[in-house]
Amino acid sequence: MGDSFGQVFRVTTFGESHGGAVGVVVDGCPAGLSLDASDIQAELDRRRPGQSSLTTARAETDTAEILSGVFEGRTMGTAIGIMVRNQDARSKDYSEFKDVFRPSHADFTYELKHGTRDWRGGGRASARETIGRVAAGAIAGKILREYFQARTLAWVSQVHDVHLEIDPARVTPEAVEANEVRCPDPVLAGQMVARIETARKSGDSVGGVITAVVRGCPAGLGEPVFDKLTADLAKALMSIPATRGVEFGLGFQAAGLTGAQHNDVFEKRQGRIAPASNKSGGIQGGISNGEEILLRLAFKPTATIARAQETVDRNGEKVDLKGKGRHDPCVLPRAVPIVEAMINIVLMDHILRAAARNNLEKLPEMLNRTL
Amino acid sequence: MGDSFGQVFRVTTFGESHGGAVGVVVDGCPAGLSLDASDIQAELDRRRPGQSSLTTARAETDTAEILSGVFEGRTMGTAIGIMVRNQDARSKDYSEFKDVFRPSHADFTYELKHGTRDWRGGGRASARETIGRVAAGAIAGKILREYFQARTLAWVSQVHDVHLEIDPARVTPEAVEANEVRCPDPVLAGQMVARIETARKSGDSVGGVITAVVRGCPAGLGEPVFDKLTADLAKALMSIPATRGVEFGLGFQAAGLTGAQHNDVFEKRQGRIAPASNKSGGIQGGISNGEEILLRLAFKPTATIARAQETVDRNGEKVDLKGKGRHDPCVLPRAVPIVEAMINIVLMDHILRAAARNNLEKLPEMLNRTL
Amino acid sequence: MGDSFGQVFRVTTFGESHGGAVGVVVDGCPAGLSLDASDIQAELDRRRPGQSSLTTARAETDTAEILSGVFEGRTMGTAIGIMVRNQDARSKDYSEFKDVFRPSHADFTYELKHGTRDWRGGGRASARETIGRVAAGAIAGKILREYFQARTLAWVSQVHDVHLEIDPARVTPEAVEANEVRCPDPVLAGQMVARIETARKSGDSVGGVITAVVRGCPAGLGEPVFDKLTADLAKALMSIPATRGVEFGLGFQAAGLTGAQHNDVFEKRQGRIAPASNKSGGIQGGISNGEEILLRLAFKPTATIARAQETVDRNGEKVDLKGKGRHDPCVLPRAVPIVEAMINIVLMDHILRAAARNNLEKLPEMLNRTL
Amino acid sequence: MGDSFGQVFRVTTFGESHGGAVGVVVDGCPAGLSLDASDIQAELDRRRPGQSSLTTARAETDTAEILSGVFEGRTMGTAIGIMVRNQDARSKDYSEFKDVFRPSHADFTYELKHGTRDWRGGGRASARETIGRVAAGAIAGKILREYFQARTLAWVSQVHDVHLEIDPARVTPEAVEANEVRCPDPVLAGQMVARIETARKSGDSVGGVITAVVRGCPAGLGEPVFDKLTADLAKALMSIPATRGVEFGLGFQAAGLTGAQHNDVFEKRQGRIAPASNKSGGIQGGISNGEEILLRLAFKPTATIARAQETVDRNGEKVDLKGKGRHDPCVLPRAVPIVEAMINIVLMDHILRAAARNNLEKLPEMLNRTL
Repeated sequence: MGDSFGQVFRVTTFGESHGGAVGVVVDGCPAGLSLDASDIQAELDRRRPGQSSLTTARAETDTAEILSGVFEGRTMGTAIGIMVRNQDARSKDYSEFKDVFRPSHADFTYELKHGTRDWRGGGRASARETIGRVAAGAIAGKILREYFQARTLAWVSQVHDVHLEIDPARVTPEAVEANEVRCPDPVLAGQMVARIETARKSGDSVGGVITAVVRGCPAGLGEPVFDKLTADLAKALMSIPATRGVEFGLGFQAAGLTGAQHNDVFEKRQGRIAPASNKSGGIQGGISNGEEILLRLAFKPTATIARAQETVDRNGEKVDLKGKGRHDPCVLPRAVPIVEAMINIVLMDHILRAAARNNLEKLPEMLNRTL
Repeated sequence: MGDSFGQVFRVTTFGESHGGAVGVVVDGCPAGLSLDASDIQAELDRRRPGQSSLTTARAETDTAEILSGVFEGRTMGTAIGIMVRNQDARSKDYSEFKDVFRPSHADFTYELKHGTRDWRGGGRASARETIGRVAAGAIAGKILREYFQARTLAWVSQVHDVHLEIDPARVTPEAVEANEVRCPDPVLAGQMVARIETARKSGDSVGGVITAVVRGCPAGLGEPVFDKLTADLAKALMSIPATRGVEFGLGFQAAGLTGAQHNDVFEKRQGRIAPASNKSGGIQGGISNGEEILLRLAFKPTATIARAQETVDRNGEKVDLKGKGRHDPCVLPRAVPIVEAMINIVLMDHILRAAARNNLEKLPEMLNRTL
Repeated sequence: MGDSFGQVFRVTTFGESHGGAVGVVVDGCPAGLSLDASDIQAELDRRRPGQSSLTTARAETDTAEILSGVFEGRTMGTAIGIMVRNQDARSKDYSEFKDVFRPSHADFTYELKHGTRDWRGGGRASARETIGRVAAGAIAGKILREYFQARTLAWVSQVHDVHLEIDPARVTPEAVEANEVRCPDPVLAGQMVARIETARKSGDSVGGVITAVVRGCPAGLGEPVFDKLTADLAKALMSIPATRGVEFGLGFQAAGLTGAQHNDVFEKRQGRIAPASNKSGGIQGGISNGEEILLRLAFKPTATIARAQETVDRNGEKVDLKGKGRHDPCVLPRAVPIVEAMINIVLMDHILRAAARNNLEKLPEMLNRTL
Repeated sequence: MGDSFGQVFRVTTFGESHGGAVGVVVDGCPAGLSLDASDIQAELDRRRPGQSSLTTARAETDTAEILSGVFEGRTMGTAIGIMVRNQDARSKDYSEFKDVFRPSHADFTYELKHGTRDWRGGGRASARETIGRVAAGAIAGKILREYFQARTLAWVSQVHDVHLEIDPARVTPEAVEANEVRCPDPVLAGQMVARIETARKSGDSVGGVITAVVRGCPAGLGEPVFDKLTADLAKALMSIPATRGVEFGLGFQAAGLTGAQHNDVFEKRQGRIAPASNKSGGIQGGISNGEEILLRLAFKPTATIARAQETVDRNGEKVDLKGKGRHDPCVLPRAVPIVEAMINIVLMDHILRAAARNNLEKLPEMLNRTL
C-alpha cells in the first residue's frame, strides 16, 4: 500500500533505479484536461540528472511516454499511465554495495525489512523513483495553473552553512531557474555552488533547506482532524528521500512566541475577510485560508559519499567503503521540482475532495448530465 | 474521509467540544488483548482538563465507556467503540464568538469551508477531539508495551524561551510525570511553569516544543515510497491542533552538516549489525532500523487569548474581541499524551502492515487455523 | 478495516448484539443538510425487532442519539456519530451457545478467525450491527430525496416458494409498508406471512428474495474498472448478513439470451438520448445511465432455528442443539430497510465521487469561497 | 480511485484498448516470491485473443514485460509494474462508433460521465483492460499454489441454453483446458461451441455462466461487517465487464429452502471440526470455513454484435449500426482466466489482512528482524 498517495487524485509509482523502467499511474484526474508528453517532459527535465555540473553524471534523457488515459490531446478521466525507461544504468558500479551497507543509506533497512534488496543504484530507494511523482505533479500543476491561477514555487534557501533570507513574495520562477542551484539570489547561489563543489572535491556531501510558497491557493482545502492540509503536506514532503523536517508558516520559531505576537488578526480587505498578516503560512486549523502557503523542508546531506567510510558487510566484518556509483553531492537543486510536484499533488487531491464535500446545494447541478 | 487515520489499525474519531459526546472507533485491533476501561482512563486522565493550575478550568471527568469490541476483558478483533460524554459545556461563554472570527483560530477556515460551524468551544476544531485519539493510542500503547516491550515517551522540551537540553536516554516516565508541565528537568520545569503563569496573567499564551523518543521500536516498520515511517509519523503529528513543524533525528540541524558528519556508521554489536551512532533518529530510508526513534514537534501559542484583540465579525465590521471561554495558556503539558498516542497509533498500524507483508514463508503458519 | 464502507461518504459501524451500544460514524457527509434524530428514527423503526408477529420478540426501542456532527438542526461537514443503546439483551439465553457452534452460523468462523468470539446473541455477526447502516442510510436517503428527487424502494418478492411477479414501476412505498412482510401485493403478502408462520411453528426458518429499484438515480455514477456501480452495490449488498446472491437487470436470466434480445437500443426521448428499454437495469459499463436501477438479492433461511439440530461442541463432542435466543424465522421483512440503506450509501458515495471528478470546468466555481 | 482494488495486496490497472499499452502495478506483494515473466505469460495466453476460432481475430501476442519489483528472479516487496504493448489496434475499424452509441455498451455512459471517451475499440471499457488483472492474478495464484496448496479453478457451465450439471469436485484443470470453450464436459463443450458458432454466423452473440471453485482455501479469510469474503468476491467479480449476477453456495436457490434444509451441520472429521455438507459454499458469516468455495457468475451476451441495430448518434438522429471491429460472440471462454485472477487477488488480499490481524501472540516473532 505504500506506493500510492492521495484519496481522490491518487498517484501510484513503480520502478527501481536499474530496473526496466520507472513510472506512475494517476487515478482520478478529471476528464478534459489538455495534456501531452511535453507538459510532463518540461518538469522531468528540471529533475533530470546531468543537467549541470552539480549533479550526477548519469546520462538519462528521462523521456516520458504517456501509455494511457489521454486521447486526442485530452485526459479522459481514466487512469493515466506514464513510463520512463532506465537507460544509463551501470549496475556493476554498484556491485561493491551488494554485501555492504552504506552508512545512513536505505540499504540496511530495506534488507532488514524485506530480507532482500535491489543493490543496484539504491533500487527502489533511489531518487529515480521520484520521476513518477514529478510526472504526476506536472499534471496536477497544470490544472492548478490553468483552472485556478495557482502556482507552487520552491527554491533552495540553504545549502550547508549558506543561508538565504528573502521575502518569499519577491521570488520569481525565473530567478529560481536562473542558476544551477535553484537559489533565487544570484550571489548566494554562487556561494552555494562553491560550497557544493568543495564538498564534492573532498569526497563529501552537504544538506540544506528548500522553501516553498503556493500562490493563489484556493481557500477551504484540508479536512478536519486527520487530513488537515498541513498533515497531508507534511506526509507528502517527508516521503521525499533525505528529508528530515518540515515546518509551516513560522514553524519552530512559533514555539518561542506568545499568542499576541503570533496571531494573524482579521481585517476586511478588497471586499472579503482575510488575515492582515500571514504568520500562519496560509493554513489555519488545518484548512487553507486563501493566503500564500509557506513551508520549509530540511534535507540531510547525501548518505553516499566518495570518501572512505568504515562500515560492515553482511557478515558483520569491517570494510572500508568508498562510494562508487554516481551521486549528487547535494540533492537540493534537483529536489526543487520534486517538492513542487508533491505539493501540487496534495493540493489537487484536496481540491477534488473539497469539491465533493463542500457543496451540497450545487451537487445536483454537478451531476445533471444528459446527452 | 478526514476523520480516520491508519490503514490496518484504523482509528475514526467523532465529536465536537460541546456536542453530546466525543469518541473513537478502532478498527483492526487484533483479538486477544486484555483491555478494560481503566487502561484507557489512565491515559485520558493525563489529557484531562483541570488536572493542574496550568490548564483550563473546564471540569470534565472524561470518563471512558467501552461500547463494543471487548468481551470478558479481551478484545475480539471487532470494532472497538469508545465514548466520553461532554459534561461541563458552558456553551453560552462562547456565544460572543458566534459571529466573530478569533485571530489564527479555525473559526474562519471552518466557516469558509463548510459555510457553517459549531461556534461552541471550537466545535470539531477543539482539542476535545483528541480524546478519541488518546483512547485509541492507549490500546496501541498497551500492545507495544506488552508484546514488544516498546515504549513511547514524550516530554515538554521548550516553553516559549525556556529550552531543555537533555540526553533523551536519561529521561524517565517518572521524571516527566513528576511536575505539571511534563518537563523531566525539575528546575526547568519550574521556569516553564512560571513562564506559563506570566502569560496567563497578562492574558496571553505561549508556544513550545515536545520531544519524543520510542524505545524498543521494532525494526522494519515503514513502507517504501509514500508510507515511510517518517512520512506517516509526520502526518499523524501534524494533525494535532496547533502544530507547526516536525523533525526527526537531527532534523533541521542536519541541513547544515556534511555527509561525513551526519552518517551513522554501521558496526557489529551484540551479535547483530547496527549503527554506531543514531543521528538518523532510528529511521533510515523511511524504515525503522531498531534504534531509538527521536523526533521533535513545534506548537504555536494558543490562538485564543484573554487579552483584547482587534478582529472582524461576519459582516467585516471591526470588533474588539476578548477571549472568553476556558483555554489553556499553553497546550503543551496536556499535548504530551496526545503526541504519544499518535506515535503509538502509527507504530501499531505499521506493525500490522509489516507483519502482513514481510513474511511470505511464515504466511501459511499464520493462517493455519483449525478448531 | 472491515468495519468501514465507502470512499468519500464513509460509514464506520461498531457494536455487538449484547454489548453496550451499536452505532455508526458517518464521515464525509456534506454540510448544510437539515437533520435530526427523527429522520434516523423513522428508518430504525422499520428495522426494529418486535414490530410485528413475524419478528423476534426482543424488545428494543432502538432509540437513536446523534452524538456529533449536527448543530442547530444542520450537518456541519464533520463526522456524524450516532448511537443506539442495547437494552433487552438476555445474554443468558445464549449461554448454551458458548461452547457449541450453530450450523451455518458465524459462530464457527468467527472463533476460527479470531480465536475468540462474543457468543451472546451472535455478537458482531448479529443483525443488530445493521442499525448503524440503517442510520447512515437514512442520512444518504434524505440527501437523495431532497436534492436529487431520487428514491430507493425495496420489497420482499419471494419468501420460500411464494414468488411475486410484478412490474417494478407499479410498486409504491405505501403498498410495501401496508403489511408486515413488506410485499407490495396483499394477496401474496398473506401467503408469505402464512409461510413464515408455518416455518416458525415447526421450529424452522425460510429464505427469500428482496427486489429493489432506484427511481431518479442520477446518470454518470460508477467509476471505470473496479469501482463500477454494479460492483460497489454488489459488495454493499453482499455484506448484509444471510445474503447468498445478487443480480442486476435481467441478471442470471441474461445468461440465456442473445445480444439482439438483450441489448437496449437507444432513442431520443424528451430531448435527451436514452435507452428504449431497460434490460440493463439502469447500469451499463458499470455506470448509471439515468434509467431505473433494478436488482435482486437472495437471502438464505435464518441459520438459528428452534428445532433440534445435531452439531458438535468446542471439543468435537456431538450435541443436540435447540435454538434458544430470539430469532426471526425469516429475516426479509426487516431486511428491506437495510437493503435500501446500503443502496443509498453506495449512491451517495458515488455522487460525491462523481461530483469531484467529472467537472473540471466547474471546479474553480465550486471552490470559490470567501466570507 | 476506481482503477485500484484491494487493501493490502493492491492492484492498479491502466490502459485503453487502442492506447500505447495496458498494464498493472501490484503494490503489497511480499518479498521473496520466485517470479519471472513466464509465470505471467502463461495466464495471459489463456486470456489472449485469437487463441481459437471462438474469439476475436485481433492478433495480439500480449507479451508481458515486468518493469519493476523483481530482481534476480525474486520479488523484492516493492511495486511490481507489468506492461503489455497494444499492437494490432485497427482503430479506424471503430471510427464509425465515434459519434454513435452502441446499444447496451459503455459508449453512452462513459461519454455521459466524462463528457468524452476513447471510441477506439471500447477504450477503457474494453476487455483489454483485464490484461492487468490477469497479470496480477497470476502473481496471487502463484503464492496460493506454492505456499498454501490452494487453487482456484473456473469453467464455463452455461452458454446460452446449454447447461452443464457437474459435481464441482470432479472438475480438473486439464478437462477445462481440453477444449476451446473451457467447459470440462467434452460433449456439452461441443454443444456450446456450436451454439457460439450459430450466434456468430447470424451476427449475434450469447451470454452464459462461469462456475468457480477454490480448493484448499485457508480458513479465517474475510473481515466482519463490510469486508466479508462474499462481499469482496462479489465486488471483484461484478467489476468484470459484462457480468450481471453472482451467487455463492446454493445462491438464489437457497432463497427457496428452509433452515433445516440449508444448514450445514458440524462434525468432527480427521481431528478437526468441519461442516458435514457444504451448502454454504465455503463461506459462513462472510468468513471462509476451510471448505471449498463455490460461486457462479452470470455474463450477459456481448453488446457489440455484427447484425444491424437501430440506435441514435450524438445528435439523437436514428442510425443503423453494424458492429464493425473485432469482437467475441461469447466472452466466456476468455473470461475464465479473468474470473480466476480476480478470485486469487481477493484471496491474497485477505490472506495478508488476516495474517496481520489474527495473530497478536505471533506478531513479535513476525517482526523480529536482525542482520
